[in-house]
Amino acid sequence: MEGDCHGGITRKSDSRMLKQYKRNTEVRNSRQLSVLSVEELVEVAGVMGIPEVKPEWVGANLVLSGIPALTLLPPSTRLQFPSGAMIVVDAENHPCRYPADIIARQHPEQKKGFVAAAMHKRGIVGWVEAEGIIRTGDPVTIWIPPQRIYAYA
Amino acid sequence: MEGDCHGGITRKSDSRMLKQYKRNTEVRNSRQLSVLSVEELVEVAGVMGIPEVKPEWVGANLVLSGIPALTLLPPSTRLQFPSGAMIVVDAENHPCRYPADIIARQHPEQKKGFVAAAMHKRGIVGWVEAEGIIRTGDPVTIWIPPQRIYAYA
Repeated sequence: MEGDCHGGITRKSDSRMLKQYKRNTEVRNSRQLSVLSVEELVEVAGVMGIPEVKPEWVGANLVLSGIPALTLLPPSTRLQFPSGAMIVVDAENHPCRYPADIIARQHPEQKKGFVAAAMHKRGIVGWVEAEGIIRTGDPVTIWIPPQRIYAYA
Repeated sequence: MEGDCHGGITRKSDSRMLKQYKRNTEVRNSRQLSVLSVEELVEVAGVMGIPEVKPEWVGANLVLSGIPALTLLPPSTRLQFPSGAMIVVDAENHPCRYPADIIARQHPEQKKGFVAAAMHKRGIVGWVEAEGIIRTGDPVTIWIPPQRIYAYA
């Protein structure tokens, strides 16, 4: 997204890929956008025992509603918007300490921390295949690739 | 790959995505490279009843050996080479008419056509996450993402 710190064609590799890359290796950016689910954020807040988890606390670029288990959408799933904008899922996002600390400061009474509560409910990261405007209230079409388990892993 | 007609940051959308895009829409290129398997090419030749299917007949950029069912590697699987070069799987490639016609001309005696024989054995297409030299004989490390079936499709 224009102006967002995660935007751009390439990015520096980070701590999630230390097995693959030396830190700060320049790689093609497959984490341009963070997409979360309204319903999953409500579930996470419930588990944490707090009234809500605001999308801006967890760095959401987009918040969608009505997609069951959005975080579990398979890699290469495509999300299409009426303008033609298309986002491709690279991977499930994992809960990290930064939003956890922000929320813990906002809600010291929390019953459970964000990292544990948000596992598999923290949305996905992806990249822009086709550019376009996305407007509040837009419908989204989901294109899921063929699904099967690779048996030789 | 430098100089290859499928290289580049973006590409024109093609007939495989007519449900998603008007033809020739400029989209981010997730099909920069075509990767095939030695063993799958041997199987395809066997089914076709011809001595071999040469990688150059089917537009291969890379041919790997020793990866079972390479074509079935899941989306977002990463293939890493000793130089640091990393290729990310976007999707299974589907057999198309162009190589089928080339092979049929080479081998008019074929018992079965390439399109039918090569289904799920035609390799994958993907994109370069990290640049680097790939040399004949290089080992390759395969990073497979978490596997699960999305139950709401």
